[in-house]
Amino acid sequence: SYSRMPRSQEGLSAAGEWPVLRAMLPDLKGKRVLDLGCGYGWHCRYAAEQGAVRVTGVDLSAKMLEQARSYTGFTQIQYLRQSIEALAFPPDSFDVIISSLALHYIADYAGVCKRMFEILSAGGRMIFSAEHPVFTARAEQDWFCNAAGKRLHWPVDHYQEEGRRSTRFLGHEVVKYHRTMATWINTLLDAGFRIRQVAEPQPAPELLRHYPEMQDETRRPLFILIAADKPE
Amino acid sequence: SYSRMPRSQEGLSAAGEWPVLRAMLPDLKGKRVLDLGCGYGWHCRYAAEQGAVRVTGVDLSAKMLEQARSYTGFTQIQYLRQSIEALAFPPDSFDVIISSLALHYIADYAGVCKRMFEILSAGGRMIFSAEHPVFTARAEQDWFCNAAGKRLHWPVDHYQEEGRRSTRFLGHEVVKYHRTMATWINTLLDAGFRIRQVAEPQPAPELLRHYPEMQDETRRPLFILIAADKPE
Repeated sequence: SYSRMPRSQEGLSAAGEWPVLRAMLPDLKGKRVLDLGCGYGWHCRYAAEQGAVRVTGVDLSAKMLEQARSYTGFTQIQYLRQSIEALAFPPDSFDVIISSLALHYIADYAGVCKRMFEILSAGGRMIFSAEHPVFTARAEQDWFCNAAGKRLHWPVDHYQEEGRRSTRFLGHEVVKYHRTMATWINTLLDAGFRIRQVAEPQPAPELLRHYPEMQDETRRPLFILIAADKPE
Repeated sequence: SYSRMPRSQEGLSAAGEWPVLRAMLPDLKGKRVLDLGCGYGWHCRYAAEQGAVRVTGVDLSAKMLEQARSYTGFTQIQYLRQSIEALAFPPDSFDVIISSLALHYIADYAGVCKRMFEILSAGGRMIFSAEHPVFTARAEQDWFCNAAGKRLHWPVDHYQEEGRRSTRFLGHEVVKYHRTMATWINTLLDAGFRIRQVAEPQPAPELLRHYPEMQDETRRPLFILIAADKPE
């Protein structure tokens, strides 16, 4: 299950995209940070370690939040069981919003973008990672293999059909929402954000040595990362 | 050959992405417009018709420029045989830069972005279309078909390997340059541009009725369009 994946057990160091996401973060010292879909709280603890004055982690999974809270000694972190789509904070509540691999589970991305913009301070930054449109386009979300099981290429289809994808992950049904690259970006622009950087990371060489199964990650983009600012 | 494709013979109305590109253009009245890779001059004539005061079309193909010049009556249009990579205009020469399906033939995209930024006026806009990274990733740039010739899906591979792709188009060898979506966007940002809109157009319904072979264009993105401004 998800809790046994390298990224769940070993944290950020086992997440191939983490060095890229980290480089897109502003200096967190003294900042109020919101983490949307905080899961086990790895990013919340990182923010606290970097000197954030207040860190709020939001997730729907009571189980994950329970484990996140089991890391004691981070008194500036608060975990809330709440839907990302029902964010209820006053305007200007946060200086930085982070969301790691959560927004592709959200049906109302436009609504979330609007709310993120409202609760961010002027000059604040939002940085997220999500599954890449090339990855989410087909419900199967898997390689095309020959009879011998060799991965021939990554198949793309239904790219322009945005919306719900019911797929299987680690033996469970998971519902995701496919949106095009244009939608990922334009929805932020429409909400008022300014795009600062887009990334489609590949695993760092040292990670490829440690996790050889990541080698195919250079063949197609797996994640999209976007950093966007609320103008001053 | 290219000159017999619908878009070459019937012009902009047969180019599926044209309505989207057009909607990304600012009002051209009174503007100085540069068209990079102007080909037969369709976009130059459109700009002139919209009231642009000066239109400069740049292309390497003497044949195409000859045909472009054969449309007389557009005294405000000037055609120059010049490489896009060797743009030689003084700063603040243009208010709008258009480039339709040319920049994926350019090796030095970063250099072109820098030069475009220099020769644009403050508040000016650059709008381009190019072949989409999902389309250019594999050198084959074709559908994956079963033994009966049915198009099963669009194959993606080598996505992270940017650079030269030698492919065949209408029986000729064509050299293109694959770059990731992140590179298409970040290189503009690095040059100083502000991203205004990204589009991955699909053919309009009336075009699908007229050109049924375009139906598969909804299955994978073919073009990427970006509008970006030089801040005031």
